[in-house]
Amino acid sequence: MTVEAFDAVEVIAAKRDGHRLSTAQINWVIDAYTRGTVADEQMAALAMAIFINDMEPEEIADWTQAMIASGQRMDFSSLSRPTSDKHSTGGVGDKITLPLAPLVAVFDVAVPQLSGRGLGHTGGTLDKLESIPGWRADLDNAEILRQLEEVGAVICAAGSGLAPADRKLYALRDTTSTVECIPLIASSIMSKKIAEGTAGLVLDVKVGSGAFMKDLDTARRLARTMVDLGTGAGVRTSALLTDMSTPLGLTVGNALEVRESLEVLAGGGPADVVDLTVALAEEMLRLAGRSDVDVRAALADGRAMDVWKKMIRAQHGDPDAPLPRAEHTEVVTAPATGVLSHLDALAVGVASWRLGAGRARKEDPVQSVAGIELHSKPGDTVTAGQPLLTLHTATPERFPRAVDALEDAVEIDGDTSGLRDSVVLETIT
Amino acid sequence: MTVEAFDAVEVIAAKRDGHRLSTAQINWVIDAYTRGTVADEQMAALAMAIFINDMEPEEIADWTQAMIASGQRMDFSSLSRPTSDKHSTGGVGDKITLPLAPLVAVFDVAVPQLSGRGLGHTGGTLDKLESIPGWRADLDNAEILRQLEEVGAVICAAGSGLAPADRKLYALRDTTSTVECIPLIASSIMSKKIAEGTAGLVLDVKVGSGAFMKDLDTARRLARTMVDLGTGAGVRTSALLTDMSTPLGLTVGNALEVRESLEVLAGGGPADVVDLTVALAEEMLRLAGRSDVDVRAALADGRAMDVWKKMIRAQHGDPDAPLPRAEHTEVVTAPATGVLSHLDALAVGVASWRLGAGRARKEDPVQSVAGIELHSKPGDTVTAGQPLLTLHTATPERFPRAVDALEDAVEIDGDTSGLRDSVVLETIT
Repeated sequence: MTVEAFDAVEVIAAKRDGHRLSTAQINWVIDAYTRGTVADEQMAALAMAIFINDMEPEEIADWTQAMIASGQRMDFSSLSRPTSDKHSTGGVGDKITLPLAPLVAVFDVAVPQLSGRGLGHTGGTLDKLESIPGWRADLDNAEILRQLEEVGAVICAAGSGLAPADRKLYALRDTTSTVECIPLIASSIMSKKIAEGTAGLVLDVKVGSGAFMKDLDTARRLARTMVDLGTGAGVRTSALLTDMSTPLGLTVGNALEVRESLEVLAGGGPADVVDLTVALAEEMLRLAGRSDVDVRAALADGRAMDVWKKMIRAQHGDPDAPLPRAEHTEVVTAPATGVLSHLDALAVGVASWRLGAGRARKEDPVQSVAGIELHSKPGDTVTAGQPLLTLHTATPERFPRAVDALEDAVEIDGDTSGLRDSVVLETIT
Repeated sequence: MTVEAFDAVEVIAAKRDGHRLSTAQINWVIDAYTRGTVADEQMAALAMAIFINDMEPEEIADWTQAMIASGQRMDFSSLSRPTSDKHSTGGVGDKITLPLAPLVAVFDVAVPQLSGRGLGHTGGTLDKLESIPGWRADLDNAEILRQLEEVGAVICAAGSGLAPADRKLYALRDTTSTVECIPLIASSIMSKKIAEGTAGLVLDVKVGSGAFMKDLDTARRLARTMVDLGTGAGVRTSALLTDMSTPLGLTVGNALEVRESLEVLAGGGPADVVDLTVALAEEMLRLAGRSDVDVRAALADGRAMDVWKKMIRAQHGDPDAPLPRAEHTEVVTAPATGVLSHLDALAVGVASWRLGAGRARKEDPVQSVAGIELHSKPGDTVTAGQPLLTLHTATPERFPRAVDALEDAVEIDGDTSGLRDSVVLETIT
């Protein structure tokens, strides 16, 4: 990358005044920010100007490429099988990666899932897997390649070498109210995924109260922006828009979600989790040229479970060890009899977070055992006084604030017109 | 000031989304920024959101009051005479403070001119006075009060105790492209002037190429905002909108401008400098209840010069010592014969800056001797080859870049419809 010299003040002023940034300006500012010659306060002002004044598709593509160029790129071309990956924008009870990665690997497509830890009300995939005794998230590049060749699937921590500009900018956005901005979200996700080197990528863009994107139009715009970025960078990319108005499945929390994932890998599990796992697997396989396979069969006959066990063992985990369970539980009952018309994803996510399943700051520990079991889903008929939710934690003093978060979470006999038949709302290719 | 606790991320998001900030939010964020618990990058994001989304008058008043509350306030109520001050938004060749302060003091009105140093293409009043041998800018509060009582006028450095939040924010705005924003400019100027404790204040709001405000509408809005802020805070405030399309007077640069100020104090000097000095003096005196005085007479008969000499001596300067002169000069001649239709303020300011009269960073030294003499003003008829400008510097290697800055500064026989009869364009009370 050729880097011309620019003046940070002029680059910021250009976006402030609604102008389009040139490729050279973007290359310069990302490189200078990574090296520290553009200061945090300057990038904060620029990020706010981008938030308010937006970026054009070419600018977002340039921004993404500049963030990729700030670090290493991985290369899976030496593998004997094609690669296909999935990224979710984050939702409550979203454990899909756990059954999905081994399921896709059954069909000789390698899944390099480089993941992060959770922050805020949505859990992190690594946090969930760390509830399995012995399991380790940190692998080096050689270990990732070997595991992809031998097992076909890896779920591990993304190394700090991928898109370091994004890592720095992500932390800055968090404290400067510049998070919920489509150009910055899209370039953040796609810079890491493109640098990761996958050949195919399916994006699971969540829509609803428990998601970043609260409405379908915004989610569609984010999905379209990311699909265009991936395609433009030579990655076969598509997106599913999926419902996040209520939690996925019947569990929220780290060990609880692993347990449910094992049910799915054993051929059972809640319908919404199975359906979404299968839909994402079919799309990932389609992008890798494997359209003609029976994905559900691999869940039913134990092939996906076999890959799962190999994948967990390869990372020093014991797939047969019992999962930890909370010492303390508290039941929330149905306040009335009728149809459960809403069970709010955000409220359940915040309650689970408050029980100890998530972290407020990135250095905080999480509880493996904390979380929430759902006994009913929207559309079910419930009877006043029946158990609706069971709250789990190692630290019972957390119950009151978790219960507070659930105050308006449950609605009975309300408007059911918003209930979805299918968790997948739209597909964007 | 009662300070409720807020979350910086929420305050930034509110302004980002175009909402009005509450008094309590503003008090909190300014106090927390002054104490360092709101970080520079957070204030930069907020300043950019304010720049793009603007503030309502009540918010600007709250912001100003919060900045005043961040530091000390001065109190001139013990003086035997009323106080009246002037603030200029900054222009090229603007030496008006020098003759103005002693002129107003002739009429038993005290002028507490707490000034700053120049940054960029406009010079600073203190830089100009420091070309007088021995003169000192730094006085403590007791010295300021004594000099106001004994001499009637003081021009000195503003102490760091006045509006420290503004001091910190001003430096941040400079590097984050959030300078040219009326709410932030107005609150910055007025927080310092209100904290300074003057009873009357006349604002000289410059309009034109050499000024912050390039057009009359924006200047009018800034002036109106500041007059309202002052009035709301109990300071009798008015504003003159004055022309800054071409430099004021016939000199630009530190010692050169002192020389011209002495001509005005001796009853001579260029008409535009005299006219503006008199207009501002009359307005300052009117605000102090002295409308019925003959200001021009005090320039003609030496009374203003007498106060000047006392004022300079009180600050250890020698008013009779010869001013330093540049060893090196270079003449720029008229490129054609005709009417000089434009001589651009910004270009002359930048050229003077490049000759060494101004500083790029606040720790840079300035040359007393550097600057530019004008031999003609717009409206004058010139002959091809006659001297138009004389450039002065101690460091002749600076001439080429200074001459470059003047490339498009001079226009002969162009449109003269923009030429102003009077330097004062409008008065806002």
